[in-house]
Amino acid sequence: MSRLPPPPLVRRIVEAAVAEDLCGGDVTTDALMHPDSRIRAVVEARAAGVICGGRIAQTVFEVIDPDVVTRLPFSDGSRVERDSVVLDLEGSSASILGGERTALNFLQHLSGIATLAARYVEAVAGTGAVIVDTRKTLPGLRALQKYAVAAGGARNHRTSAGDGILIKDNHIGVLNARGEGLSEIVARARSAGRHSVRVEVEVENLDQLREALKGGADVVMLDNMDVETLREAVAMAGGSVVLEASGGVGLENVRAIAETGVDFISVGALTHSAPALDMSLRVL
Amino acid sequence: MSRLPPPPLVRRIVEAAVAEDLCGGDVTTDALMHPDSRIRAVVEARAAGVICGGRIAQTVFEVIDPDVVTRLPFSDGSRVERDSVVLDLEGSSASILGGERTALNFLQHLSGIATLAARYVEAVAGTGAVIVDTRKTLPGLRALQKYAVAAGGARNHRTSAGDGILIKDNHIGVLNARGEGLSEIVARARSAGRHSVRVEVEVENLDQLREALKGGADVVMLDNMDVETLREAVAMAGGSVVLEASGGVGLENVRAIAETGVDFISVGALTHSAPALDMSLRVL
Amino acid sequence: MSRLPPPPLVRRIVEAAVAEDLCGGDVTTDALMHPDSRIRAVVEARAAGVICGGRIAQTVFEVIDPDVVTRLPFSDGSRVERDSVVLDLEGSSASILGGERTALNFLQHLSGIATLAARYVEAVAGTGAVIVDTRKTLPGLRALQKYAVAAGGARNHRTSAGDGILIKDNHIGVLNARGEGLSEIVARARSAGRHSVRVEVEVENLDQLREALKGGADVVMLDNMDVETLREAVAMAGGSVVLEASGGVGLENVRAIAETGVDFISVGALTHSAPALDMSLRVL
Amino acid sequence: MSRLPPPPLVRRIVEAAVAEDLCGGDVTTDALMHPDSRIRAVVEARAAGVICGGRIAQTVFEVIDPDVVTRLPFSDGSRVERDSVVLDLEGSSASILGGERTALNFLQHLSGIATLAARYVEAVAGTGAVIVDTRKTLPGLRALQKYAVAAGGARNHRTSAGDGILIKDNHIGVLNARGEGLSEIVARARSAGRHSVRVEVEVENLDQLREALKGGADVVMLDNMDVETLREAVAMAGGSVVLEASGGVGLENVRAIAETGVDFISVGALTHSAPALDMSLRVL
Amino acid sequence: MSRLPPPPLVRRIVEAAVAEDLCGGDVTTDALMHPDSRIRAVVEARAAGVICGGRIAQTVFEVIDPDVVTRLPFSDGSRVERDSVVLDLEGSSASILGGERTALNFLQHLSGIATLAARYVEAVAGTGAVIVDTRKTLPGLRALQKYAVAAGGARNHRTSAGDGILIKDNHIGVLNARGEGLSEIVARARSAGRHSVRVEVEVENLDQLREALKGGADVVMLDNMDVETLREAVAMAGGSVVLEASGGVGLENVRAIAETGVDFISVGALTHSAPALDMSLRVL
Amino acid sequence: MSRLPPPPLVRRIVEAAVAEDLCGGDVTTDALMHPDSRIRAVVEARAAGVICGGRIAQTVFEVIDPDVVTRLPFSDGSRVERDSVVLDLEGSSASILGGERTALNFLQHLSGIATLAARYVEAVAGTGAVIVDTRKTLPGLRALQKYAVAAGGARNHRTSAGDGILIKDNHIGVLNARGEGLSEIVARARSAGRHSVRVEVEVENLDQLREALKGGADVVMLDNMDVETLREAVAMAGGSVVLEASGGVGLENVRAIAETGVDFISVGALTHSAPALDMSLRVL
Repeated sequence: MSRLPPPPLVRRIVEAAVAEDLCGGDVTTDALMHPDSRIRAVVEARAAGVICGGRIAQTVFEVIDPDVVTRLPFSDGSRVERDSVVLDLEGSSASILGGERTALNFLQHLSGIATLAARYVEAVAGTGAVIVDTRKTLPGLRALQKYAVAAGGARNHRTSAGDGILIKDNHIGVLNARGEGLSEIVARARSAGRHSVRVEVEVENLDQLREALKGGADVVMLDNMDVETLREAVAMAGGSVVLEASGGVGLENVRAIAETGVDFISVGALTHSAPALDMSLRVL
Repeated sequence: MSRLPPPPLVRRIVEAAVAEDLCGGDVTTDALMHPDSRIRAVVEARAAGVICGGRIAQTVFEVIDPDVVTRLPFSDGSRVERDSVVLDLEGSSASILGGERTALNFLQHLSGIATLAARYVEAVAGTGAVIVDTRKTLPGLRALQKYAVAAGGARNHRTSAGDGILIKDNHIGVLNARGEGLSEIVARARSAGRHSVRVEVEVENLDQLREALKGGADVVMLDNMDVETLREAVAMAGGSVVLEASGGVGLENVRAIAETGVDFISVGALTHSAPALDMSLRVL
Repeated sequence: MSRLPPPPLVRRIVEAAVAEDLCGGDVTTDALMHPDSRIRAVVEARAAGVICGGRIAQTVFEVIDPDVVTRLPFSDGSRVERDSVVLDLEGSSASILGGERTALNFLQHLSGIATLAARYVEAVAGTGAVIVDTRKTLPGLRALQKYAVAAGGARNHRTSAGDGILIKDNHIGVLNARGEGLSEIVARARSAGRHSVRVEVEVENLDQLREALKGGADVVMLDNMDVETLREAVAMAGGSVVLEASGGVGLENVRAIAETGVDFISVGALTHSAPALDMSLRVL
Repeated sequence: MSRLPPPPLVRRIVEAAVAEDLCGGDVTTDALMHPDSRIRAVVEARAAGVICGGRIAQTVFEVIDPDVVTRLPFSDGSRVERDSVVLDLEGSSASILGGERTALNFLQHLSGIATLAARYVEAVAGTGAVIVDTRKTLPGLRALQKYAVAAGGARNHRTSAGDGILIKDNHIGVLNARGEGLSEIVARARSAGRHSVRVEVEVENLDQLREALKGGADVVMLDNMDVETLREAVAMAGGSVVLEASGGVGLENVRAIAETGVDFISVGALTHSAPALDMSLRVL
Repeated sequence: MSRLPPPPLVRRIVEAAVAEDLCGGDVTTDALMHPDSRIRAVVEARAAGVICGGRIAQTVFEVIDPDVVTRLPFSDGSRVERDSVVLDLEGSSASILGGERTALNFLQHLSGIATLAARYVEAVAGTGAVIVDTRKTLPGLRALQKYAVAAGGARNHRTSAGDGILIKDNHIGVLNARGEGLSEIVARARSAGRHSVRVEVEVENLDQLREALKGGADVVMLDNMDVETLREAVAMAGGSVVLEASGGVGLENVRAIAETGVDFISVGALTHSAPALDMSLRVL
Repeated sequence: MSRLPPPPLVRRIVEAAVAEDLCGGDVTTDALMHPDSRIRAVVEARAAGVICGGRIAQTVFEVIDPDVVTRLPFSDGSRVERDSVVLDLEGSSASILGGERTALNFLQHLSGIATLAARYVEAVAGTGAVIVDTRKTLPGLRALQKYAVAAGGARNHRTSAGDGILIKDNHIGVLNARGEGLSEIVARARSAGRHSVRVEVEVENLDQLREALKGGADVVMLDNMDVETLREAVAMAGGSVVLEASGGVGLENVRAIAETGVDFISVGALTHSAPALDMSLRVL
């Protein structure tokens, strides 16, 4: 998702968010704002970070009132300083103040993700390891969250259960119980699976890695291994397979993991636990 | 939202999440799982916390396969220890493994919110102050997030721009520029506003508080004030108005704020920055 | 709802109405109209009244054919004489005649409501009483109906069960049966309820009013009281609480009710029984 | 529409209505009702009339809480006395009081239509004339309104612009301006129109009727004619064509119109101006 | 459906198709295409035929990227030679290649139907018989398929079960079993049915035709009769009723059927079995 | 898609199809059928083939009337003889005849696809080549069509543009014009593309194949090559890469293609041009 989802999908998400906030009208604006009152306002970042969601915030105002004029000083993925203006607005005060909360909710969340992703990418700079996200996303927001991850400079893992075979511990457990060994499972996935996708398998130790290699895995996910074991895994694989480290990854240990020589490091926190980047709207 | 939204609203959110993950099928399950394979599995919390989202996780499996049998050992709002079983499952392995990620995404996010809310509530225990959330929610998830806040023992502020007049700094700025003072603005909101809602006004200093009281505000939001100023504000109001502290609230200072005597403390982080509570599914 | 709902909500309602009428095509137009035939036409009121729904009627034609040019001689809320032109149209005859019925259905219904609301407002002119609507609306049309009420000069009561606590006879009955008295109920609602909304309670006699005042109600609804009792209620309340008369209100008695000194008078008929304002489309 | 629309269509309309009312929760119930409180309640008609919408009211409660048990003493189309119980309910007090308003809104509106339709049908009893509705319906409610008309004993005219050719004054005007006479228009509609539908044409005088007969119309709508002219029209047609009287029809003149011998009388007020039938919910 | 459905209906179908293809992004374009790369491209027919769906293909690109410029050299219903350009495109390469498959899927299917319809129309040229479609359409595509039939020069039979009474063998069977004869059934449909639609009845032999005529059918469907029997049916009816041949119709026998003198010939294959017209997109 | 899409997705498609047919009611049933009339009926195949869509046909009746009892004698993917009963029905005659057309439309189309797929699979039996479908599907029906392909014994290629990198002639053309050669393009896709999917590239001759192998393609699509060239391609690849033949494939030449040793053969006609399998409903 290095590109935004198609406009109608973005619009549908934005319209749902607008409906959530304005389903009962805006009683403050209704009571107080003059219909002819026009303002200029800006959205400012209250912390340094990587901006994401500018086009979506614009869509919020298009949806509420097509006469609000918006301008984006930065494109998504730009690094900004604290107090930078990230959106310029001009139009009816009722429309701008009515859309404020919804627009900020998108901007703060997506910029929070992009900023966190950028910190991970920076932490592994120069090692060759690539940071990727997971399917641990917030319901209804997956496409936007994955776009924010890419805006932060990381890459996307699967966007759904349909775009990559990933044999996890639970699949293996179920099939082991039927008497099928790991290398057989992988080999069966290769022959029975959709031929447009790779076969990735999650392993917990080096014995399983050996089985996975034997079965012909395209990618092996090394789950929750310590740095020493990861290094041995890289040596054992010897470049014959793509290696992805996963589990227990934090900013404090990600560089050590990257330096083991794994190809990818997947980080669930990018999408399930990124704190918002603080922003606010200021009327000029 | 101390109650779940009506079933069709929950179902619509769940169906959208299921579609997000399974729109292209589940290529791993399709390649490997036997149609007749049945399993028992449990979802376990990987950290202590307050559980929320059990009914929603059940709905995920109902949506995917009505023949999966589910059981919830704990009701929403229960405090659980690490490694507690929070959901029991029995049914087709393809259905259970196909719904795993989506169910966990709901459970981890909502339990993360409930757990954070509970920590704030605990921090102010005995002071009389009530923790409330804000409209700083993630798009599309507001109703569920507010339900999770309540499960954690906190209370809900407005669920939309329609259920409470809240005159914020930007409203005041726009109207000041037209020559209208704060007490006049509040008085106008009282007479022109919908009579079923209260009039709350955000103030930044004690002068503004004085104006708000003069205008007849029902509730005053004390924005970003230090503890000393909050204490003076409480004294000045003398119980004539409901006071809500807001801005710059964290677990480290929330008790000090509560002890100033304010009635409510609103915390945006409950819904915009709560980290997930770690959980996983284990096949028995 | 003194403002129209956001454009996408209006558009969704309009698109549903267009689909309702044109789901099987327009067999008359298909059989007879020439594709190149262009006409000018006007919508005229066939009775004097207050116009509402102009922007919605325009949306009907935008949805059917963006090339139809429309012009609104009057803004919503305008009082017009019989045979006034309320909408000018120019474009393809197939598009204009295809949208005629749907556009008229919106205009006639909303103008009917605005016209009825205006009659009530007029009837109480000078008394200080404010006419408000209720939640007795037609399913799917609440936001538009409440907008029409405001266009007629009346005000809106709650738009949903979420934007105001209103303790009705049935709530009281259920809680009485558990041994809780009216003043306790009201007091509990004050302390347990959402702090952004007022607490209104419905009472049927002066004893209950006394209890409501004791419990600290913000607003009291005086249900189905005769004018004499209303007057006593106003005296008893002595301005300490907002009073709303409700039940059995008609054009014939609304002024007498208003003159008792109540603050608000709620009228369900505005939205559940307003007759259409007659209109028709005429090709020039 | 002598049958309800298919269940999913009914459900969609009901869910939209429930969402309209409960989108922000039910703050009264949330504040006051005990989760374990169960009640029995009844919906009673507050006026005599013809009941319609029972199944839809049941769907409201199914949607909110499948554990509410409902029972319908009367089927749709039944004539009931004032104070008759039209719906029995048993279940959680929060669910019943939460669905009360939405269920009543459907019941009151549809029973209002059925009751008005029944009055028209009664007024023409024995004459052979059949009362029908029009496409002058309220947006989004057409299928339910037409079902209510049938419940009241009247019949349905077109449900959309696709199920019958109806050449109205405006079509004729446009085509006259291109030099095409009425009988030619009708003949062209017969040959070019969809062969599964009849060709109806609206005429304003006997000359036009003569042209319509000449063109081969299946049905002629006699628009806004006085009783004398209607009688002449019946004589002129001599049974060769179906005749429908339309325009200016009220309860005061409908029998006189029926006695002229026309086959159908269409009444827009059935769906655009029927007053609600008063009902209320009472907790036992 | 000689006109496209209203724009929002078209847009909804197009948006669903775009979502189907791009729900997980476009991984090829994401990996390879430069954001600033602009191209010109054409869609070409790879076989001679009748074009249909041009406006819909344009909508695909509008939905994906409003900056793509499109031009249609031919209007729907035009006959084109092999290798004709049927759509010109200019814009971002990512947008054009991203929409290619969806646009072609619409164009190929609808042009396939139009081309097949045109072959049937041609086959009966000069006989007076009219080719019509059926309700044997592909789910979700009925309105577009019927539009394509009309683009091919044929006409539409019913678009839904609501726009024409059609008494089929199964209806007759059920009612026969209750002791009601064919002529009675037809007569009852005439008097009880909606008066805006015709009464068509399916008959399998000349005895049934006689009954149908006696009952007063408007249209008789002659089901699966050989040419000889059709000729006798035409003679028996003597022009008193519209006759439609149906069942077992193919390109090889349609002219013979037409020459029997029937008015309409309905062909299910137009919509359930039309092969795609081959097309492809070529970058210039 | 060897499994049906999750129930809510199936239900949504079915509800849309039901709405398409019954949006204006069923005027034949309304006019004629007795409300208490119950029947037994069967759907029978009118030709031998492979059945698909049984569960979907059941859903049609569940949606229309949950009281209709259905039974499926065959599971999807079963081969049946002409006149086999493929669905048993018992319930209200109005419901069964009302759902007949919609249920048959699903069954005929999906069984048509399954039957065609099975013929291709049979044609290549014993060669080791696997038949796969394409993204040349009918808008809105992709998931069901791909399920039908699998029911016929073939396999699925990509279900969307997100689950496999497929570099086609147009991508190559655009990038060639920027000076990038085929092997470079493939190599870049390998390193920049999502690591869960394979990289497939379309080639038109053996020179391009050589480049594709050099670039490290996982899969090569051999487009429109004659059998001789395909054989050379297989030899040149020497098992180092998965080979897929595509373009110009028909039942007459598919075995010859399979015998060249390619791994996969993709056939667009399976989903864009499969004729319906004839079926009908018979009341017992």
